[in-house]
Amino acid sequence: MQITSEALERAIEELAKLPGTGRKSAQRIAIHLLKQTDEHVSKLADALIQLKKSVTRCSVCGTITDTDPCSICSNHKRMNGVVCVVEEFQDVYIIEKTNEFRGRYHVLGGTISPLENIGPDDIRIKELLDRIADEDESIEEVILALNPDAEGEATSYYINKLLKNYEIEITRIAYGIPMGTELEFIDEATLSRAFASRTSF
Amino acid sequence: MQITSEALERAIEELAKLPGTGRKSAQRIAIHLLKQTDEHVSKLADALIQLKKSVTRCSVCGTITDTDPCSICSNHKRMNGVVCVVEEFQDVYIIEKTNEFRGRYHVLGGTISPLENIGPDDIRIKELLDRIADEDESIEEVILALNPDAEGEATSYYINKLLKNYEIEITRIAYGIPMGTELEFIDEATLSRAFASRTSF
Repeated sequence: MQITSEALERAIEELAKLPGTGRKSAQRIAIHLLKQTDEHVSKLADALIQLKKSVTRCSVCGTITDTDPCSICSNHKRMNGVVCVVEEFQDVYIIEKTNEFRGRYHVLGGTISPLENIGPDDIRIKELLDRIADEDESIEEVILALNPDAEGEATSYYINKLLKNYEIEITRIAYGIPMGTELEFIDEATLSRAFASRTSF
Repeated sequence: MQITSEALERAIEELAKLPGTGRKSAQRIAIHLLKQTDEHVSKLADALIQLKKSVTRCSVCGTITDTDPCSICSNHKRMNGVVCVVEEFQDVYIIEKTNEFRGRYHVLGGTISPLENIGPDDIRIKELLDRIADEDESIEEVILALNPDAEGEATSYYINKLLKNYEIEITRIAYGIPMGTELEFIDEATLSRAFASRTSF
């Protein structure tokens, strides 16, 4: 096999490293880019470089941001005193999309996972305690919004136990039947949880 | 919804423009890149810029290349006198992968398509005739390897008719049952073609 363009080959190789992109898709993307204007391709390349250059972690909540503190932590219109604890910065993104929550966030950057050797000191739990101790923040409620899997549950329990010593309310988001689905498509674990967490009508 | 990183937002936007990449995949790719080293991301960005910068068309065969003429046209080890005519440069790539063909290529850059207002003068047919007239190339056989659809067929017939006036052999690659498939999964058009093109055993 003779390659007529090393540049194309290299672009395909680099694109194939992206998640969810095999060699075939990489080839399709590279050929698509070949047909685009120089400007279009530079915009993409520049966006990727800027992504690495500008993006940092917010020193308060731990989410990704271009400025420190992030636009949520520095927004005076956001409700003070309520902090929503999530695993990863993507979760902030997902919750923000609902436009439901107007308080602050705290990104743990992971969950406690003995199997992967991740203990409480490896995620941002100490930082959460510091924020609770900070009188300027005057935190009154911590909402746990971790994933409903083994690690998320264990981490929620750990934080809950830890925060019992403080005079703050600890809540968690509701886990149950997702809206718009029928019961017959719901797995048993979710259904059990929905029964256990039933509320008065 | 409050966006904490404009750079992330912009990267997702640019990535979502790629073919086969929706907003969700773009988000996944951007988050993946955030976790990579600066070097890894620069390599990708640079490969994309170089792709547009270095890649040009071979003035002989019309395939994409970093040098003109391309490495196939300038390779003295390739067989002279046999030219394989294909629609797009991707086809050169696909045929090269088989390591079966050792001659030269000619990329038409499309097919005759009255519906899309593409006539014989809009694809590289004149360039093919020039090559056939060129004594240095001493072309003895033209292999048509166009796609077996309406436009590919029409273009093959057109070229075949045109080349009848020259003292060269005109062949086409075989269309029939793909290897490794069972007859019951073959569409009727392919099966009809396989019967019509049957060869003695």
